[in-house]
Amino acid sequence: MELREIGEFGLIKKISRDAKRKAVLVGIGDDTAVIRDGKEFILYTTDMMVEGDHFRKEWSPPEKIGRKAMASNISDIAAMGGMPEYALISISLSSDVSVEYVELIYKGIYEVADRYGVDVIGGDTTHGSLMVINVALTGRTDEEHLTLRGDAKPGDYILVSGPLGGSKAGLELLLHGYQEPEKPIEKHLDPRCRMDIAREISIYANAMIDVSDGLASEVCHICEESGIGMVVEKEKIPLDEDTIRAAEILGMDPYEFALNGGEDYELVFTVPEENLEEVRDYGTIVGRTGSRGMGIKIRDERGINELKGGYVHF
Amino acid sequence: MELREIGEFGLIKKISRDAKRKAVLVGIGDDTAVIRDGKEFILYTTDMMVEGDHFRKEWSPPEKIGRKAMASNISDIAAMGGMPEYALISISLSSDVSVEYVELIYKGIYEVADRYGVDVIGGDTTHGSLMVINVALTGRTDEEHLTLRGDAKPGDYILVSGPLGGSKAGLELLLHGYQEPEKPIEKHLDPRCRMDIAREISIYANAMIDVSDGLASEVCHICEESGIGMVVEKEKIPLDEDTIRAAEILGMDPYEFALNGGEDYELVFTVPEENLEEVRDYGTIVGRTGSRGMGIKIRDERGINELKGGYVHF
Repeated sequence: MELREIGEFGLIKKISRDAKRKAVLVGIGDDTAVIRDGKEFILYTTDMMVEGDHFRKEWSPPEKIGRKAMASNISDIAAMGGMPEYALISISLSSDVSVEYVELIYKGIYEVADRYGVDVIGGDTTHGSLMVINVALTGRTDEEHLTLRGDAKPGDYILVSGPLGGSKAGLELLLHGYQEPEKPIEKHLDPRCRMDIAREISIYANAMIDVSDGLASEVCHICEESGIGMVVEKEKIPLDEDTIRAAEILGMDPYEFALNGGEDYELVFTVPEENLEEVRDYGTIVGRTGSRGMGIKIRDERGINELKGGYVHF
Repeated sequence: MELREIGEFGLIKKISRDAKRKAVLVGIGDDTAVIRDGKEFILYTTDMMVEGDHFRKEWSPPEKIGRKAMASNISDIAAMGGMPEYALISISLSSDVSVEYVELIYKGIYEVADRYGVDVIGGDTTHGSLMVINVALTGRTDEEHLTLRGDAKPGDYILVSGPLGGSKAGLELLLHGYQEPEKPIEKHLDPRCRMDIAREISIYANAMIDVSDGLASEVCHICEESGIGMVVEKEKIPLDEDTIRAAEILGMDPYEFALNGGEDYELVFTVPEENLEEVRDYGTIVGRTGSRGMGIKIRDERGINELKGGYVHF
């Protein structure tokens, strides 16, 4: 069977098994694993970036490759309401890469690590014909802040923490040979993660996830793991001007970037009505959850339809 | 500056920084990081395997690729006197790989994980034009068992836990188109790790490390980090018959395989005289440590000379 027939999440189901230790609260299948540690929780996440698929040396200066590798992992910890702690960096380097180039990658890694209090404690440096960077990151949180994908309740409001689709717009601009608008390109090459607001949101949200594969994929994860349904209002999805402009230049749909693009690293979270005021400054309402029976829907100019999609890795 | 001018360990020095948390006992630069956790220690290690450099699909069935990825990481935890605990698996898959093939890789991963009580709690599956597997593994140990590279003392005996050079002999056989002798080839494709004896040794040893880059490189790590010198007796280095036979077939030196080959995943450890009896069943004496001033030496048929080397990644 070919990978593309079952996709990334189908494959994950095939290779998943239940963990044996009782302390494992969330295991394989989630972006971040959660292990109970007394009154606290230890978080474990990892992300691999492969040259050609996840970055291109000709598009990205080395500092930005390093910053993105670290930021995308911290984003996973942020989405659980956690504080990142220790990182292991594995890197495979091709022979054409210079020592100075590698130092610049690590400059970027350390910049983001320092900003969020991460200690880089080890790793593996090796040779490969492609450059590959893998970050494994641990974090820590407590009962008050821990926020899973699977705890959304029917009737929650669905919010996103910022404009979406920018990263995919930037990627499409680069793929089509454009150097501007700059802002979406920067969003693609050097995304920020939302540690600035994630901890505060996590106190009030029922469920949270970061946008690594596109809004459609992320809300599907929340619905499937929470056993609920939802309706997303397409016109409420926040887009910034440069993303709209990039879509015009490219003759593409900016909502498609937001729904199925990914790598925005904004947060998607669901909040019960009584907590809504507490998080209004941190996001835009894009929909509302309901019972499982309602399915996962999007309301757009054509009415209410099935919401499907997400970035397809294979 | 080219990577090969400074090598792997020169590069690691350039990209290393001291960790900021006081709980970090051993940080970047070691195969395994050590974090103090009350009366215990948490261990963190990671290893990346890249298609072409670390394995070839035409040589290795997928179960063995999975088993080796897990075993090489467990070996790093074993060498610290630890018990492995949680693993994150990142894998990049090329489009020509089938679902069944990936399932077999995970069959191998889970086989070794189960044997040593490891819970696979998460990971990342993605696409890349090469297959890459990264394992990040945590473990746990206590004051009695924790064994670092840097605690060898002058006058210690140096022991190795089993015959060396087999893995490199197997690699050379494969590179030269031979299908036998089988044993070294199996050692290369499907190495075991020494969790079976590592915990017991760790009670009595001053310093320990696993053989991932060859005996020469590992004893240099022990000397440099312990601030001591040593003499290794070449003729005492254990070699098995098939490794010697492979070297004859290839017209190569089996001691060269042992000293500079790597991936044997046996243990090298130093033991004070008063503990020697306790570990005699677990290894062969290959030398003795001394003061830093004596340097790092090997005694062979030509006398006593500088010991240099180790597997060169770049």
